[in-house]
Amino acid sequence: MRKSSELFFVSSNVHKYDEAKRILDSFGIRLSFLKSTLREIQSDSIHEIATLKAKDAFAKFQRPILVEDDGLFIDSVGGFPGPYSSFVFKTIGNEGILNLLKESRDARFVSVITYCDNTVLQCFDGMIHGNISMSQKGRGWGYDPIFIPVNSEKTFAELDCKDEISHRYHALENFSSWYLSNQ
Amino acid sequence: MRKSSELFFVSSNVHKYDEAKRILDSFGIRLSFLKSTLREIQSDSIHEIATLKAKDAFAKFQRPILVEDDGLFIDSVGGFPGPYSSFVFKTIGNEGILNLLKESRDARFVSVITYCDNTVLQCFDGMIHGNISMSQKGRGWGYDPIFIPVNSEKTFAELDCKDEISHRYHALENFSSWYLSNQ
Repeated sequence: MRKSSELFFVSSNVHKYDEAKRILDSFGIRLSFLKSTLREIQSDSIHEIATLKAKDAFAKFQRPILVEDDGLFIDSVGGFPGPYSSFVFKTIGNEGILNLLKESRDARFVSVITYCDNTVLQCFDGMIHGNISMSQKGRGWGYDPIFIPVNSEKTFAELDCKDEISHRYHALENFSSWYLSNQ
Repeated sequence: MRKSSELFFVSSNVHKYDEAKRILDSFGIRLSFLKSTLREIQSDSIHEIATLKAKDAFAKFQRPILVEDDGLFIDSVGGFPGPYSSFVFKTIGNEGILNLLKESRDARFVSVITYCDNTVLQCFDGMIHGNISMSQKGRGWGYDPIFIPVNSEKTFAELDCKDEISHRYHALENFSSWYLSNQ
């Protein structure tokens, strides 16, 4: 890894970049954006999807990159929507998820941040447990209006402190510790 | 294409092979089975998924192969579960689909049969319109117990003639016309 090399977040989702940038800023790491849709494989393993996507992103841009894969995993429906969270959000959306669930509403949000440069490929995980709300609350993107983290009564969309407790925060914190100690 | 070359159906799903074999038998085409899990990409285009999977299968086995990609597309939920029908079936299942839907239940089943050998890569489509039943009926695999084809009051799982009207039948009929005229 080259000292102080510029770091790029590759994604088609500007919301993810905005969050990642704010979080990495707090660790003193500067992040730039490469808006790009990357090919993803179908797999039940979020790590397999993440690893191949990161290799693809590095092959495309030949710069040190970060990609993120995340998913909402609802226990009572076998981890649905899991690795296909984006597609499920685009089709059935939050209302669909709410119609689907009955009593058991335990869920977890998982984030895998993958770093790739010309010598290193490494994944960093973050997770937060919680449950699915009975209705949408707050204004936020993705599943934020229906996810209530453990120890909270508010959804991610209602919380001011999401950036400090989220799955994405924990994954980026793990990445930052490693990145800063290797510079 | 070599005359009378052996033809292999590559899939991890023996139910699909059984159906394809019965249907192709009726057209005088002999089909063998190569049980294998192939890598699939995430895409909203079933043709893109099918084409890359067929190339992958041919690269792996170096024999004339057929692969099938199919999906159930429900209009009122943006084509869900679509290309991710297998994953959705494994997780929320037919009960999940039934919980999700309200009044509008129009759906279509789509099959893409893709042939690949050392010179040809070609897709053949089949489709059947219908709607999603109010409850599961009949014994069948996948979404058959909840799909009622147009002009029927029975689900695919209850019908004796599924093999003669299904999306898979239409795709394989298209393939057979082409295959037999090119031998």
